[in-house]
Amino acid sequence: MNQKIEKLIKQFARLPRVGARGGQRIALALLQDKTGRAEMLAAAITDAVENVAPCPNCGVLTDRGAGKCEYCRDGSRANGALCLVRDLSDVWTLEKSAVFHGRYHIIGGLLSGANGTTPDDLNIANLAARIRDENITEIIFALPNTVEGKTTQHYVMSVLTDVPNVRFTELASGVPLGGDLDYLDDGTLSLAFGGRKAI
Amino acid sequence: MNQKIEKLIKQFARLPRVGARGGQRIALALLQDKTGRAEMLAAAITDAVENVAPCPNCGVLTDRGAGKCEYCRDGSRANGALCLVRDLSDVWTLEKSAVFHGRYHIIGGLLSGANGTTPDDLNIANLAARIRDENITEIIFALPNTVEGKTTQHYVMSVLTDVPNVRFTELASGVPLGGDLDYLDDGTLSLAFGGRKAI
Repeated sequence: MNQKIEKLIKQFARLPRVGARGGQRIALALLQDKTGRAEMLAAAITDAVENVAPCPNCGVLTDRGAGKCEYCRDGSRANGALCLVRDLSDVWTLEKSAVFHGRYHIIGGLLSGANGTTPDDLNIANLAARIRDENITEIIFALPNTVEGKTTQHYVMSVLTDVPNVRFTELASGVPLGGDLDYLDDGTLSLAFGGRKAI
Repeated sequence: MNQKIEKLIKQFARLPRVGARGGQRIALALLQDKTGRAEMLAAAITDAVENVAPCPNCGVLTDRGAGKCEYCRDGSRANGALCLVRDLSDVWTLEKSAVFHGRYHIIGGLLSGANGTTPDDLNIANLAARIRDENITEIIFALPNTVEGKTTQHYVMSVLTDVPNVRFTELASGVPLGGDLDYLDDGTLSLAFGGRKAI
């Protein structure tokens, strides 16, 4: 195989959920395309990588050098609620669902012995300052409902124990909408029973 | 969402089998990567698109301006066999299996009323000249075993009727290796019965 094509396939194959076969398909589609798609893709990658950086306040990727991101600048979001998420993709998911209209804070990972993520790796150094400066009254933990997520949540709470006038909440656990009990795992069932409500 | 990121996701989402969710994952992985993967990918795309072009003889993508491709230059492949395929990915598949060691010819599509591919779209103008110049004695049709593949095969054969001393062959049809009859479609079963062999 031509070396330049081989190199291109390898680069694509390393991307999430693409793999060797997918890399071949993509490389071939780009090389056979006559509409300039490949050039546009290369330009979009370069533009984004060079001109996008984490918001210094919350960690959301935003225009480099433009200061705070769109969410941190938006005055209508200064409602006292701060939603802690692991990742930018969680912000996108929440924004799409439109269930939350406050501020975000991306912590950038979950504590885990398995992949070596330690407290130093979490983006939480400015959390106490944010709570004070932005009059945050509620921190909503929207971390994954896993051992790592809960461990991280407890750690972040322990760091913030001395911060006054803020309450901590977490997303409800239970049966998903449309969820059939037959298909639920024992952990979810147990959470749903433990959290049962009067009707 | 940041416009540059949105643009990047859109470009990725248009690639084969990626889609909107996949585009988000890939864009995020590239933007969060610290190892220069994004720059390497952009460079590989630009390098391949600018410096790769179809071999003027057979259609396989090769270094632009370098003349014939590796297969057409390889003297050990001048064994009189020419394998007709639809696409470069078919060449890759055959090369990986190592079942064929002759020359290739990419016709670049299949005749189809549905997507409007006509004989003018097929890369077959130099086929007769190749058969003469490269002393081809057998043309192996390795086109998809579909109505479009067979139609295209018959058309190409009709164009080459006047070319002397060349025989046409096609890949055998039948039960795939490890194939369970239970899971075979009627068309394949019918081909396998029609082509049954004495044992």
